[in-house]
Amino acid sequence: MTDLIRSWVETANRADCPFPLNNLPFGVFSAGDAPRCAVAIGDKVLDLAALQSAGLLPESGFHEPALNTFMGKGKGAWQDVRDKLTDLLRAGNETDAVRAALYDMADVAMHLPFQVTEYTDFYAGRQHAFNVGSLFRDPENALPPNWLHIPIGYNGRASTVVVTGTDFNRPMGQLKGPQDDAPSLGASRRLDIELEMGAVVGIPSAMGEQISVDEADDMIFGYVLLNDWSARDIQAWEYQPLGPFQSKAFATTIGCWVVTKMALDPFRCDAPKREKELLPHIKDTGPMLYDIDLSVTMAAPGGKPKIICETNYNTLYFSAAQQLAHHASSGCAMRTGDLLGSGTISGPEKGMFGSLLEMTWGGRDPLTLDGGETRTFLEDGDTLALHGHAQGDGYRIGFGPCVGTILPAKSTREGRP
Amino acid sequence: MTDLIRSWVETANRADCPFPLNNLPFGVFSAGDAPRCAVAIGDKVLDLAALQSAGLLPESGFHEPALNTFMGKGKGAWQDVRDKLTDLLRAGNETDAVRAALYDMADVAMHLPFQVTEYTDFYAGRQHAFNVGSLFRDPENALPPNWLHIPIGYNGRASTVVVTGTDFNRPMGQLKGPQDDAPSLGASRRLDIELEMGAVVGIPSAMGEQISVDEADDMIFGYVLLNDWSARDIQAWEYQPLGPFQSKAFATTIGCWVVTKMALDPFRCDAPKREKELLPHIKDTGPMLYDIDLSVTMAAPGGKPKIICETNYNTLYFSAAQQLAHHASSGCAMRTGDLLGSGTISGPEKGMFGSLLEMTWGGRDPLTLDGGETRTFLEDGDTLALHGHAQGDGYRIGFGPCVGTILPAKSTREGRP
Repeated sequence: MTDLIRSWVETANRADCPFPLNNLPFGVFSAGDAPRCAVAIGDKVLDLAALQSAGLLPESGFHEPALNTFMGKGKGAWQDVRDKLTDLLRAGNETDAVRAALYDMADVAMHLPFQVTEYTDFYAGRQHAFNVGSLFRDPENALPPNWLHIPIGYNGRASTVVVTGTDFNRPMGQLKGPQDDAPSLGASRRLDIELEMGAVVGIPSAMGEQISVDEADDMIFGYVLLNDWSARDIQAWEYQPLGPFQSKAFATTIGCWVVTKMALDPFRCDAPKREKELLPHIKDTGPMLYDIDLSVTMAAPGGKPKIICETNYNTLYFSAAQQLAHHASSGCAMRTGDLLGSGTISGPEKGMFGSLLEMTWGGRDPLTLDGGETRTFLEDGDTLALHGHAQGDGYRIGFGPCVGTILPAKSTREGRP
Repeated sequence: MTDLIRSWVETANRADCPFPLNNLPFGVFSAGDAPRCAVAIGDKVLDLAALQSAGLLPESGFHEPALNTFMGKGKGAWQDVRDKLTDLLRAGNETDAVRAALYDMADVAMHLPFQVTEYTDFYAGRQHAFNVGSLFRDPENALPPNWLHIPIGYNGRASTVVVTGTDFNRPMGQLKGPQDDAPSLGASRRLDIELEMGAVVGIPSAMGEQISVDEADDMIFGYVLLNDWSARDIQAWEYQPLGPFQSKAFATTIGCWVVTKMALDPFRCDAPKREKELLPHIKDTGPMLYDIDLSVTMAAPGGKPKIICETNYNTLYFSAAQQLAHHASSGCAMRTGDLLGSGTISGPEKGMFGSLLEMTWGGRDPLTLDGGETRTFLEDGDTLALHGHAQGDGYRIGFGPCVGTILPAKSTREGRP
């Protein structure tokens, strides 16, 4: 484990600061002007476009409103920029040029950090798959037959990946309960969260090209918190035999900071013991999961957030590198900006489950929130937040929150020219 | 039915020409230089960038290597450009400026006509769904319970949508037959085609916004032929419970010409009689399918193409407008360049089935090709072509072929920097 790297931005040196100099997560901000690339340091946002213009950083597309150009440059460029930023921000190295490029985090708007090229969602949490299989199929055969062999996943919808703080409408859809004779059109009544991490692809791979797990790991630029909002009632009626579609298409929220693999490197850990030997193209080649503490808070309208889940990224069965290697295994081209959701990260015990479906066991056991309200699924006005950090010795690598509030369903068409 | 509009490009007036003046399909071409937008007319390609530069067409992004800018402009702009082109190319209106912008089709390269933003594949062929359900589940309950109520679909992979003439490698993947103890990694042995039409979205819709079927129809710019290549053995092992993933991710081929809705308008026809009443958001509001003759030819290496399927687009159960309305029903934002595959278009009888899976009934009844070779699924070197046209009175609206040849599987990584 490395030590805290002290910065002349004093707030970055506090033990509970999510953004010490060891972190340097990348994002896109604006301050009443054009969105451009930044890193977080302490309680500040550092304008990378300004540093690039000043010749302090190499040409990396930092004036663009997305990290894609920089992410596509690969490991050497990522490390070079990180090294330069570490030097510019290190305690004792304060300069006017860099100080002039700092903004108070409270004064800026954060945007989607990269253009999401395509979004894929996996299902790599063993406890989650077991819980869901137990609820909807059979506890004796809860895991699908392929589950221990393939990091199974489905293509999600990139057009509705939004940045933290973007509220969205409760989805409409076709609903049909087991007791209903026919489906009806209505607002989802079983709206849920899924606590996930998203891996962000930096380096592309070509169509027809297989990649190894190590190559896949090299292609990943970093990680974000990800909430894969899910309408369980729409899902139940639509998902056979082609998988989730509109039940997951209305919104996926990601955090505004992409924490780089470089920052997370000291927190790598092994995947769980393999219950079945993995095939060569996805076999473990080293520690590729991370020890990242995760939690979820929920607040009713006007209420205080209450922690409803605490778990860890290291409980996943398949790493993002394994998922990516599998994703390319057929010859599927991967591109800069591809986002890979981990699947719901549920730890082995109640209190560690990453969805309301599991926490309330299909709606049977309501949660009690701060203020006394109870919940099975989400109600309008509820605010959900994901939190995550890797704990170092005297510092932490934080992700910033990943927050969304549910607006009422909107059934009429508005605002299109 | 309208009559042939005669053009001074004489080859466009032949009764069997796929590209009369009534058609004017849009594509992207190059002639040893930068790709740019074009229409087809007779045996010529008309350079729209040149016409735009000459002031003969409005600013429409025709210098770009994709139709997306033009497609995003909407109905008024589409009709305006069509009217101007019809006038410029009408018999008697020949000018040097337009003649100078014509290229022999044989001398140019055709490119992917638009940047595919996201790709969704539906399953709206009733006979196909019945055949597949009969083969893999139960002929008595072949259609999934939701099938008559929802145009079910899944998100496909946009990164591997390629233009006609792009050969690709047989996919690798995890395979596990019913008799196998464990899965193995290998090249697919049950590689198949799916005869489909793709609808191309021009006008976007906003996140959270429901759209009506009529609004959805207005958003569609045009249609392409689409071959949704499928690895049936990879699919069988991976697809439960999350749907097709790598079995469909390695390649999807589309034609190089987007035939506009304006050109197809005289060929609109009603959908089949509804077996269950549809919910309001996807209810039929008028004729939204098209009478388009479709066929598939197959050739072994060195052999002659043989017709293996003849069917019609009008056999689909759900129209693209209904699929698009359903796609947006949850609040899913749709974007310019989204591609919606119709699902396999199988007519009601053998000889009209749009996949080898159905034609050979799961491999039981091999096809005999020209030259005597037999096939259950595709072998390396096989060339498949989709063809389609709407037959008018003395003219036809053609799509141009949609062709691909299978290259051997490639299991090693090549060519990535």
